[in-house]
Amino acid sequence: MIPDADDAITRDGKALILAYDHGLEHGPVDFEPNPETADPEQVFELAGHDAVTALAVQKGVAEAYYEDYADDVALLLKLNGTSNLWRGEPDSAVNCSVEYANELGADAIGFTLYGGSNHEIEMAEEFRDAQEAARDHDMGVVMWSYPRGQGLRDDTAPETIAYATRLGLELGADIAKVKYPGSPDAMAEAVRMAGPTKVVMSGGSKTDDLQFLETVENAVDAGAKGLAVGRNIFQRENPIELLDALEAVIFDEVSARKALRRAKGESHDENL
Amino acid sequence: MIPDADDAITRDGKALILAYDHGLEHGPVDFEPNPETADPEQVFELAGHDAVTALAVQKGVAEAYYEDYADDVALLLKLNGTSNLWRGEPDSAVNCSVEYANELGADAIGFTLYGGSNHEIEMAEEFRDAQEAARDHDMGVVMWSYPRGQGLRDDTAPETIAYATRLGLELGADIAKVKYPGSPDAMAEAVRMAGPTKVVMSGGSKTDDLQFLETVENAVDAGAKGLAVGRNIFQRENPIELLDALEAVIFDEVSARKALRRAKGESHDENL
Amino acid sequence: MIPDADDAITRDGKALILAYDHGLEHGPVDFEPNPETADPEQVFELAGHDAVTALAVQKGVAEAYYEDYADDVALLLKLNGTSNLWRGEPDSAVNCSVEYANELGADAIGFTLYGGSNHEIEMAEEFRDAQEAARDHDMGVVMWSYPRGQGLRDDTAPETIAYATRLGLELGADIAKVKYPGSPDAMAEAVRMAGPTKVVMSGGSKTDDLQFLETVENAVDAGAKGLAVGRNIFQRENPIELLDALEAVIFDEVSARKALRRAKGESHDENL
Amino acid sequence: MIPDADDAITRDGKALILAYDHGLEHGPVDFEPNPETADPEQVFELAGHDAVTALAVQKGVAEAYYEDYADDVALLLKLNGTSNLWRGEPDSAVNCSVEYANELGADAIGFTLYGGSNHEIEMAEEFRDAQEAARDHDMGVVMWSYPRGQGLRDDTAPETIAYATRLGLELGADIAKVKYPGSPDAMAEAVRMAGPTKVVMSGGSKTDDLQFLETVENAVDAGAKGLAVGRNIFQRENPIELLDALEAVIFDEVSARKALRRAKGESHDENL
Amino acid sequence: MIPDADDAITRDGKALILAYDHGLEHGPVDFEPNPETADPEQVFELAGHDAVTALAVQKGVAEAYYEDYADDVALLLKLNGTSNLWRGEPDSAVNCSVEYANELGADAIGFTLYGGSNHEIEMAEEFRDAQEAARDHDMGVVMWSYPRGQGLRDDTAPETIAYATRLGLELGADIAKVKYPGSPDAMAEAVRMAGPTKVVMSGGSKTDDLQFLETVENAVDAGAKGLAVGRNIFQRENPIELLDALEAVIFDEVSARKALRRAKGESHDENL
Repeated sequence: MIPDADDAITRDGKALILAYDHGLEHGPVDFEPNPETADPEQVFELAGHDAVTALAVQKGVAEAYYEDYADDVALLLKLNGTSNLWRGEPDSAVNCSVEYANELGADAIGFTLYGGSNHEIEMAEEFRDAQEAARDHDMGVVMWSYPRGQGLRDDTAPETIAYATRLGLELGADIAKVKYPGSPDAMAEAVRMAGPTKVVMSGGSKTDDLQFLETVENAVDAGAKGLAVGRNIFQRENPIELLDALEAVIFDEVSARKALRRAKGESHDENL
Repeated sequence: MIPDADDAITRDGKALILAYDHGLEHGPVDFEPNPETADPEQVFELAGHDAVTALAVQKGVAEAYYEDYADDVALLLKLNGTSNLWRGEPDSAVNCSVEYANELGADAIGFTLYGGSNHEIEMAEEFRDAQEAARDHDMGVVMWSYPRGQGLRDDTAPETIAYATRLGLELGADIAKVKYPGSPDAMAEAVRMAGPTKVVMSGGSKTDDLQFLETVENAVDAGAKGLAVGRNIFQRENPIELLDALEAVIFDEVSARKALRRAKGESHDENL
Repeated sequence: MIPDADDAITRDGKALILAYDHGLEHGPVDFEPNPETADPEQVFELAGHDAVTALAVQKGVAEAYYEDYADDVALLLKLNGTSNLWRGEPDSAVNCSVEYANELGADAIGFTLYGGSNHEIEMAEEFRDAQEAARDHDMGVVMWSYPRGQGLRDDTAPETIAYATRLGLELGADIAKVKYPGSPDAMAEAVRMAGPTKVVMSGGSKTDDLQFLETVENAVDAGAKGLAVGRNIFQRENPIELLDALEAVIFDEVSARKALRRAKGESHDENL
Repeated sequence: MIPDADDAITRDGKALILAYDHGLEHGPVDFEPNPETADPEQVFELAGHDAVTALAVQKGVAEAYYEDYADDVALLLKLNGTSNLWRGEPDSAVNCSVEYANELGADAIGFTLYGGSNHEIEMAEEFRDAQEAARDHDMGVVMWSYPRGQGLRDDTAPETIAYATRLGLELGADIAKVKYPGSPDAMAEAVRMAGPTKVVMSGGSKTDDLQFLETVENAVDAGAKGLAVGRNIFQRENPIELLDALEAVIFDEVSARKALRRAKGESHDENL
Repeated sequence: MIPDADDAITRDGKALILAYDHGLEHGPVDFEPNPETADPEQVFELAGHDAVTALAVQKGVAEAYYEDYADDVALLLKLNGTSNLWRGEPDSAVNCSVEYANELGADAIGFTLYGGSNHEIEMAEEFRDAQEAARDHDMGVVMWSYPRGQGLRDDTAPETIAYATRLGLELGADIAKVKYPGSPDAMAEAVRMAGPTKVVMSGGSKTDDLQFLETVENAVDAGAKGLAVGRNIFQRENPIELLDALEAVIFDEVSARKALRRAKGESHDENL
C-alpha cells in the first residue's frame, strides 16, 4: 500500500464505497426488491450523496454513465467479476484493463482475490499486474479480499478475516474490503493485521436498518475505515435516509441509534 | 456500452443483423433447405436489402467477398466461433483479431459469451481484449450472450435471458443478442436489465412466416431493438418477402400480420 | 481467403503440392519403400518437375535445402506438425513462425486444423495468428483441414469433408487440403461448400497407379483444384512418370487412363 | 550466480537475512507469540540492527514502509509467495515484478522454488524470467530452494538439501536459502554442492536460544554463509539480544555459547 | 539445420561435447564417484582439453565460471533441464533465454525434446522459439532428442533413434544428440535419417574404458559426428587419458583399442 494513494476515493481517510456490480455477480435477482435500481442511473444519483466517497461498477456501466457524473462521483472501477451462472471453484474474469479504466476516468481499481481457492495463485498474479499498472496511473487499489473455495470451512471466521486483511497489506492494496468477522474484537484484530492498509467492511445482504448501522458502528469503533455497501442501500425503500445515517456513523462517529433517528428526522424535516 | 458506438450497424437506433456464420457453427447442413445459400454471394446480395443494417460473417467470408459489397453492406465481423464437430463444454475460438477485422473494413465486432460454461471466464477475458481493441478503432460491439453449459438447466428461461442481457451491459457490449425468452413480458424485463445496451432477438431455427414475424413484433413491442436472423431468412424460399416484412415490423412498427400481407402483395405486384 | 493470394503456389488456378513432412509426422517408416527418399534432396529434385506447383516441408528441411532450389521450387512451409510418437488427442506443434518462414523464402504457409479434436479451439487460434501474419507478408494460406479426434466417427464421410472445406473458407484459407470423400458427388459438394477457397485432394497412402490417377481425375472433374501428394510420389519406383501423368490429369484435364499411358510411353521414349 | 552480485545484501561475504513474509505465507497466527510484531514497523526497526544484512518482505510491506528505512536497511524483495489458505500441490504466486521491485528500491530479489512439486517446471521458468530481469537491474538473486510436494518423502534429508543448494547454483542464484539438513556434515556437503553460490540456513520455527545458535554455529562452521531468520527473531521476547548473538556467531565466528552469554551480558549492561 | 551454423562447437565437422548439467538433471549423486567433480572448475579445466569442442552447462554454472575460460572453451548453453525430484511425464523447464545465453557468450544452445511425451507439443514450441532466436544470434542449435514418456516402450530401439535424429533435421537442429541404438547398423540408419544434421552419440552412464571407446568407434564408423559425454569423463579416475583416446577415435579415426593403448602410454610418458 502507498500512503494517500486512495485519497481520491476517501474523505478524511475514511471510505463509503457504493458498490453496484450485482448485475454481473448475482444477476437481476438483486434488483427485485427495488426494480427501478436495475437502472444504473438510479445508483449514480445515489452516489452523488455526500456520504459516498466512491462508486464501484464494472466497465460497461462506467462506459455508459460515468461521463455525466464525473464531477460528482469518484469512480472505483471493479476490474474483475463473474456471473454466478458458473458454479465452479471460485474464480473471477478480468473484464477491464487498468489502461482502459484510466481512460474511463477511474480514480481507483477494485479487484477480488479469493484466497484459498484453487485459482488463488492465478488471481494473485492478475492482481499483481493490475496493482502495478494502477501505480503507473496513480490510481488507488482496493482488494475485495474474500477467502473462499475448496478447503475453506468458514469464510467469516475471525482468523480468516484477519488473514484476508493481511493479504491486502502484503500484496499491496490500499484498502481491503472484507466481510464482518462477527464481533468488534475480531474486526479490531483484522484491522490491526492490515497495518496501514485501510479496512472497509462489506455490507452483505440486506438487513434491518438499525442492526446494519450498529454493525457498521462496531466496525468503525474497531478501527475499520468505513464500508462498502450495495444491497443494503439500493434494496431499501429509504436509501438516502440510510446514507445520511451512514455518513454520521462513519465520518462523524455518531452512534448508530442516534444517526438513524437523526436521519429519519432529517428525512421528515430537514430543518430540525 | 458507449452511446452511438453502434451507429454504423443500426438505423434509427434499431438493428436487423443478417447472420451468416452457420457454415462454421453448424456446417453445410444449414444450407440444405436452400442449397444455393452455401454461396456467400447469395447472402451478401440479400444483405443489400434496405432492411438489413449489418451482415455478420466470419473472417474468411469477409476476406473473400466484403470488398465488393462495402458500399452497400455494413460489416459486423464475428470474431469467435467454432465448429460443432467438437462436442465439449461450450467454448469458442477467436478466429480473427480486432486489428484484422478493422483492416477488412468491419464496422463492428461480434463476440459470443457462453455465460455459465466452464469456459466463461476465459471467454470473458477474450471479450475484454476484443471490446477494448474495438473501442480503439471506434467499432461497435455486439455480444452473442448465450448462457449455456454445465449447470445451466434452461437456456431460454426468463431469468436466464435477463441475466444474459445484463451481462451485455456490465461487460461493455453496445448490443446484446439473446434468444427469445418465451413471452413479451420476459423480453421486456430482459430489455430493462440491459439499460442502454440494445437488445436484439436471435432468430433461431426456421419457423412459420407469421409465427416468426409475430415473435419479432412481440419482441420489438417489448423494447427489443431488432433482430439478428440467419436461417429464418436464408432457409426460406422467399427471403426478400420476409425482409420486407421484417423491415415493416422492426422499423415502422407495423403489425406482423399486416406487414406479411403487405410484403406478399408487394412481392406479387410492387406497384400496388 | 483472398483471391490470388495463392498465385505463387498455383498455376492457372490449380495446384500440385508435393508434400514431404512425413519424416516428422510418421517417421522413417515412410521412407522404407524407397530408402533414398529419406534424403530431402531427392524430393527437392522431384519438386523441380513442371507439374509441381509447390513443395511442402517443415522448417528444418527448408533451412537446409531450399536456398539451392529457390529458383525452381515454390516453398509451402508447413508451420505445424508433430511426431506420431505422441498418441493423444490429435494436436500439432507450431514448429515455425510465419516471420521465420518468410525469411526462409516461403511463398505460402501450411497449417493443420484437426476439427473435432479437443484441441480444435487452440489450433484454430494458432491458425488465426498464422493466417493474419501470412497476410502481412503476402503469403498464401493452405489449411490441412482434417477433422479428427474424440467424437468423430468417420473422418472421410461426405458430410465431414464438406464441413472440412467449409472451415477452410470460413477461417480464411486460400486452399483447403482434404481427404477424398469417397465419391465424385461428395467431392463436388465439398468443393461447393468451399466457395472460392480452392480444394485440393490429399494423396494419402500409396495405391495403384491407375486407381490413384482415376481418383485424382474424379476429384478434378468434381471441381477440386488439384492434389497434395507425398507417399504416392516418393514411395513409387516411377515418381517422374506419375508426375507426368498427374500434370496431364490436373492441368490438361486428360483422362487418367490416357495420361498414364502417355506418361509411361514418354518415360520409355521421350522423343516420341 | 555472479560473483559480488549479492554485495548489497551481504557483509564480508556473509548474510543475515531478516525474513518477514509470514503474514502472507502463514497468516496472523505467526504474530501471536508477540502480537506487536504484526506491525511491520517493529520489524523494520529490528532490521536496522547491525547484524542484519537484508530484510525480506513482500511488495505491499515494502511499498508502505521501505522509503523511511532505505538508508539503514537493504531490501530483499520476495517476489513470490502464497497464503496457506490454499492447500494444493506446492506452488507460489509471483506477486511483484522485478521492475517494480527495482522501483521500490530493492537491492535483491527473493524467489521460492519448490523442486519436486508438480509446479516445479512452471516455477523454474518464472524464476528464469525474474533472475534475468534482476541481472538487468544489477540486483542480487536469492533462491528459497525448498524441495517439496508429491513424491518428496523427506524435505530435510541430506541428499535433498544438497540437491536444493545445487539447484541454486545451476539455475543462477547468488544465494540459496535451505533448511538445515540435520548435521554439520550434511550442511558441509550441501555447501560444497553449491560451489560459489552462498548457502544460508533457514531459521524455521522458533526453538530454544542456545539450541538455535548452536545450529547456526554448526552451519557456519560447515561453510554456510549465514542465516535467514524470521520467527526465531520476531517471536522472541529478546530479539535484539539474539541478533547480537547471531552477529557474533555468523560474522565473528564466536561460539554459540559465548555469543549468547556475551549478548545477554550486553543487553543487561551495554558498557561492560 | 543451417550448414556451418555449428562451426564454433565443432572441429573439422566433428564434435566432442563435454556435458555437465548433471547437477541439475540427476543431482549430487552423479558426483559421488569423483567428489571433486562437484566443483565446476574441475570440469571447465577438462573442457580446455584439445579434444573437447564445446562444454554444455546450465545458466548458473556459465554465469559463475565461463568468463575465465572464454578463450579456451566453446560454450554450449543448455537452455532447458529439470531436476529428477519431479517424477511426472517427461518435461523440462526452460531455464535460460537465448538472449541471456548470448550475453553470457554462448556459441550454441542446447535443448531437450522428449518426443512421445505428453509434453512433446509444448516442448517443440519452446524449441521453435529458442531455435529461431538462436538463428538471430548466429548460434548453433543442438537438440537432445530423447523420445521418452507415456506410450514409448523402448527408448533406444533402432526405429526410435532413427525417428529421434529425423526430428532433429525436421525441426531445425544443427546437431542431434541421441542415445546409441545398440548396433552400428542402427546408428548408420539414424545418421542417414538426419541428412545434413550431425548426429552425436550420448555417452550415458559410465562403462568400461575399452567398451565405451569401441561404442564410440562404432558410432563414428557408422557416420556419427562425435560424442556428447559427461559421466564417462568426469566419473573416471583418468579423464584426460580418456579424452586423449576419444580425440584419436573421433577426429583421427584411430581404432578404440589403439587409441586407448596410445592414450595410456602417453599418460605414462608423454615424451614417447
